[in-house]
Amino acid sequence: MNEVAVNETAVLTPADLLVSWQGHRRLTRRIIDAFPEDQLFSFTLGGMRPFGGMAWELCAVSDYMLDGLMTDTWAAPNWNAHPPQEKAALLAAWDDLTRRMDTGLPAVPATRYHEDKALFWGTMPAHAAALYAVDNEIHHRGQGYVYLRALGVEPVPFWER
Amino acid sequence: MNEVAVNETAVLTPADLLVSWQGHRRLTRRIIDAFPEDQLFSFTLGGMRPFGGMAWELCAVSDYMLDGLMTDTWAAPNWNAHPPQEKAALLAAWDDLTRRMDTGLPAVPATRYHEDKALFWGTMPAHAAALYAVDNEIHHRGQGYVYLRALGVEPVPFWER
Repeated sequence: MNEVAVNETAVLTPADLLVSWQGHRRLTRRIIDAFPEDQLFSFTLGGMRPFGGMAWELCAVSDYMLDGLMTDTWAAPNWNAHPPQEKAALLAAWDDLTRRMDTGLPAVPATRYHEDKALFWGTMPAHAAALYAVDNEIHHRGQGYVYLRALGVEPVPFWER
Repeated sequence: MNEVAVNETAVLTPADLLVSWQGHRRLTRRIIDAFPEDQLFSFTLGGMRPFGGMAWELCAVSDYMLDGLMTDTWAAPNWNAHPPQEKAALLAAWDDLTRRMDTGLPAVPATRYHEDKALFWGTMPAHAAALYAVDNEIHHRGQGYVYLRALGVEPVPFWER
């Protein structure tokens, strides 16, 4: 395999994906942590969910994608219908996933990213699944920014990873 | 160049980037269009900007990135300090960029994505610049979702592209 040829046509390599994903996850962790404990699982706007609920979902989706990429089994996310409504428990789960992603993602065979996978939501290439997890996290984190602003909390800039 | 070797180590190819970027831009266009005309440039939450202002910025940033990728000059975004406060003008600019991206992005030499570029905000690989434009759009569009919900408008699902 010719390494130069490879870099010439990849916009994103597996190593780039890990850097991007973990950078976003570090920022989301700071946004979670910026919420006052008594607002993380209660404050809402527009009839939407509290940010703590969104963040537990983000954790489950990323965990599902990482596990799928690593094991090539894509049954369903491990939804927790009643996750702890506590910031410390959420951050502990977040950090556990961070560690597993740091060791697990680099071991994913790169060929797998271009195979179609039957995900819980439908069939798509594995690379689209991974990007979906990142995109979905950015989407909900952006909503968390509005919640924080409405609570009078100045969030860390979007570009700080 | 070995095409198989290439696909084996790219998470995202230039063709994938175009699909992802334009998919997000189609969704953002629908979110812009979902705003009542009299709220797009006036409604705010948490002391933030109206969504119309964010959308004009998204247009300028994506235009800057596309132009940089195509011409390899990265001076500064073409900020419009006083863009029209009208939905039709915003959507027309959006659609113009869509057409230029469809024809221009496939012509970008793939090697360029892995070269460091001196952007308006600092130096980064061109692929990180392109992804930044997409990520920034998802971030602000997520905020637009909160505005729409707060206005009592049900937005199109995030996963519809």
